[in-house]
Amino acid sequence: MAPNPDISQIKRIGIVGAGNMGTMMSFGFSEHGLDVSIWDISEKNVDQAREMAEQTKTLKGKIDHFKDIHEFTKSLDSQPRKIFIFSITHGWPADSVLEKIKDDLKAGDIILDGGNENYRNTERRQKELESKGVKWIGMGVSGGYQSARRGPSMSPGGDREAIKFVLPLLEKFAAKSPIDGKPCVQYMGPRGAGHYVKMVHNGIENGMLSAVCEAWNFLHKSLGLSYDEIGKIFEKWNSEGELKNTYLIQIGSEICQKKKTSEGDQNGEGKGESGYVLDDVLDKVVQDDDNSEGTLFWTVMDAANRHVAAPTIATGHFFRVASGNRAQRLKAVKNLDIPKPQRVDLKDKDGIIENLRRAVYASFLCSFCQGLELIARASKDEGWDVNLGKCIQIWRAGCIIQEDYIADMLEPILLNANEPIMNMKLIDEVAADLRKNFDALKQITLKAIEWDNYVPAISASLEYIKYVGGGMLATQFMEAEMDFFGAHAYDRPNVRGEDPGKPSKGAHHYEWRPA
Amino acid sequence: MAPNPDISQIKRIGIVGAGNMGTMMSFGFSEHGLDVSIWDISEKNVDQAREMAEQTKTLKGKIDHFKDIHEFTKSLDSQPRKIFIFSITHGWPADSVLEKIKDDLKAGDIILDGGNENYRNTERRQKELESKGVKWIGMGVSGGYQSARRGPSMSPGGDREAIKFVLPLLEKFAAKSPIDGKPCVQYMGPRGAGHYVKMVHNGIENGMLSAVCEAWNFLHKSLGLSYDEIGKIFEKWNSEGELKNTYLIQIGSEICQKKKTSEGDQNGEGKGESGYVLDDVLDKVVQDDDNSEGTLFWTVMDAANRHVAAPTIATGHFFRVASGNRAQRLKAVKNLDIPKPQRVDLKDKDGIIENLRRAVYASFLCSFCQGLELIARASKDEGWDVNLGKCIQIWRAGCIIQEDYIADMLEPILLNANEPIMNMKLIDEVAADLRKNFDALKQITLKAIEWDNYVPAISASLEYIKYVGGGMLATQFMEAEMDFFGAHAYDRPNVRGEDPGKPSKGAHHYEWRPA
Repeated sequence: MAPNPDISQIKRIGIVGAGNMGTMMSFGFSEHGLDVSIWDISEKNVDQAREMAEQTKTLKGKIDHFKDIHEFTKSLDSQPRKIFIFSITHGWPADSVLEKIKDDLKAGDIILDGGNENYRNTERRQKELESKGVKWIGMGVSGGYQSARRGPSMSPGGDREAIKFVLPLLEKFAAKSPIDGKPCVQYMGPRGAGHYVKMVHNGIENGMLSAVCEAWNFLHKSLGLSYDEIGKIFEKWNSEGELKNTYLIQIGSEICQKKKTSEGDQNGEGKGESGYVLDDVLDKVVQDDDNSEGTLFWTVMDAANRHVAAPTIATGHFFRVASGNRAQRLKAVKNLDIPKPQRVDLKDKDGIIENLRRAVYASFLCSFCQGLELIARASKDEGWDVNLGKCIQIWRAGCIIQEDYIADMLEPILLNANEPIMNMKLIDEVAADLRKNFDALKQITLKAIEWDNYVPAISASLEYIKYVGGGMLATQFMEAEMDFFGAHAYDRPNVRGEDPGKPSKGAHHYEWRPA
Repeated sequence: MAPNPDISQIKRIGIVGAGNMGTMMSFGFSEHGLDVSIWDISEKNVDQAREMAEQTKTLKGKIDHFKDIHEFTKSLDSQPRKIFIFSITHGWPADSVLEKIKDDLKAGDIILDGGNENYRNTERRQKELESKGVKWIGMGVSGGYQSARRGPSMSPGGDREAIKFVLPLLEKFAAKSPIDGKPCVQYMGPRGAGHYVKMVHNGIENGMLSAVCEAWNFLHKSLGLSYDEIGKIFEKWNSEGELKNTYLIQIGSEICQKKKTSEGDQNGEGKGESGYVLDDVLDKVVQDDDNSEGTLFWTVMDAANRHVAAPTIATGHFFRVASGNRAQRLKAVKNLDIPKPQRVDLKDKDGIIENLRRAVYASFLCSFCQGLELIARASKDEGWDVNLGKCIQIWRAGCIIQEDYIADMLEPILLNANEPIMNMKLIDEVAADLRKNFDALKQITLKAIEWDNYVPAISASLEYIKYVGGGMLATQFMEAEMDFFGAHAYDRPNVRGEDPGKPSKGAHHYEWRPA
């Protein structure tokens, strides 16, 4: 990449938010030689960030910690353009900080909102700041606090010139693709495109997470494998074939093998206890209940709103939602008395474990298809012109949905597509892989259901493949019922202009029963 | 019911929209002795409605047809309060008609919006008209054009006094419960409550529709039963037990047995052809693609937004969405080459058909649980105080989700509940029925998957029952992964205050891998 002359102008950036992500980002930028100002509304967070910085030996650039927000903004004044990265909660917290610093901003300043913000909020703020000449960039930052330090995957969207200005800086900081060393950050498109891509990333992540936890449960509860054994299996899956270098599989293998340390957890709790950390983890996933995260349910909402079939993602969401309120669930457990996952004794487990690997891969691929189709749909609706190949590029490293095999398959095809591909199943390679792994997915779903294991996302993926690839669906009868009670009208088979015809109101209504 | 003195004030109502629903409603009200004014923006619709009225011998009240909207509103001026029923498309068409008649309205006038409107639009119009003293009532009307004539199920929501004023009229027109003769119309709650209840009704409807079409396909494609045989089975299901008097099963039996008439369809097409009407129906369900209906995808969006697990409803939606674009789907069919539903030869089909009946019932019950929980959640969030028992009452007749057994079970419990029930699985009778039919649902899902049949809603219902009734879910591993990459934190098992604990951020974070 040719060096951008502008980059030398950026000596210091301001980070808003000294939580996990913000603090790690301050270290990351410092390690790249940049000076950093950091502020948080919580003084405790500022103090903690300072303490952590003092203990970190690898820092290069200076990190200054602020409790006064105006001193914080003033510290950035020596540059022609102030650059901020917001790393705080979406919604009103971001609005309230923006309100506080609004008067300190001048034309040309750039705010990179790295929070998991709703793209419509991003677009609203962009409009609000337009007259001031301040550029608000909605930038997805993926990879969690771990990547925030080592280099995340980033999807900036908004004013193209402003993004071009900061891109060299972001490229230094970003994770690098293991394939070609390219930084995992790209201009995604105008307006809310960047935050949209991140939102869908999190939707895909959830479909994958659900498939992984279903596979883990199957191995543990039904096949009776120990955590260590499962860890080794995940390690193997991660080392070759369709699941090679899959972040969620890779950390899954670490999780399975992680033993408690004598110091206990971060707060020192569980000190002196032995055993696996995993045994300490309850099954409550609460990010929806406590409203700390919106991206996943926004993805489900947007898929419904834009009429994109996304059952793997949605089902994973409902699974997680149902897990959150454990107290209420335990009452239902008593009432329902549903069989628990059965333990079975198999002599030869290798065949079923190989099928499980393929089923997980097929579910991952379904999750990607659904997410990419949603981005394609939104990009068309909104006129963003998002290049799906660039999405795959930035998801090459540093992010949660990193999956080498799928990326290897999709990146060249999507980058080189002459026009946006709206249906991923029309890509030969995708179709071939769904076909190839269909039977494994089917066999695993059958076994899991037979043994009362949980497979909401895996079974939803199986049904998805069947109905997106079915020539005459059961919806024939649904259509007839809707014409009966609602005069919704239908098209006829083998009639020119009707079969396949357009996806619009049919030409015929039958008076099934005189009204 | 005591006669309401106000009812004598209503001699005439004005219907906006002379489509299927509006025309049938004009007949319905006329047959109850009311004079009706009817207007439509399409002069063709007005002419058609007039022709149909001329051919209808059962009318009592006068029906006057208008092409000029102000003459239409003037025809209602002789009454102290003008009463309108809107039966037009939601969104901008309703807004544009309101704009046209706004100046003709005066304080006290009542508009009953019978369209499938989004409850937020309803609330917006209510606010807009507040200063004029005009009452906009969002009123769900269910039952399709068939019921619009014979008496629909109605869910008015908005100003209580205005609804009280028109209720006696609506009660005359409404379908009557076969149990106690009660009219299927009730005040649902303030603001958007009425349209919300109708929206969710349509969501439940879709979960049920999906289960019915999956069952039909299973019987036809896998068991090889003829349409007539399936018609007889549905007839039997509809006559007794858990599926007795289920509208969608009942019309299903008629559909299966309906032969083409020599006159062809409504337009005379297919004249002289013989065979089953069903064979003329393609598998494209397009109401999402052509945006003619919003209620279903709004339900999915709202379930996601309010964090209510609704997989049966959502999966049915995605199934239908995938069916719409048949042209694109057929290309994917070629690419994917997925096995078609298999035909099997069974000696004794009775056992599996009985299991299928139970599986359909369990899926229906899941759909009701999900929908009712969504209404309960929204009612609490919005302060509507919707009585779920009244929802069941108005769904007793005239509507698409009519299902006697579920209504018999739920009506007394929900009507008499001291406080709103937020989780339907905590009702003993519901839990017992889900438990009782769990194995049938499981066996059918297994067979359908084994034979490559489509069971998105049925299999989603099975997984739903398992995870809402599971004491330790696979999400344990999801939670661990989220703590690994996102420091999301977890609660520990068997720790007071944590297990079951609250659905909020856990107390522990483990540094699985130093950041």
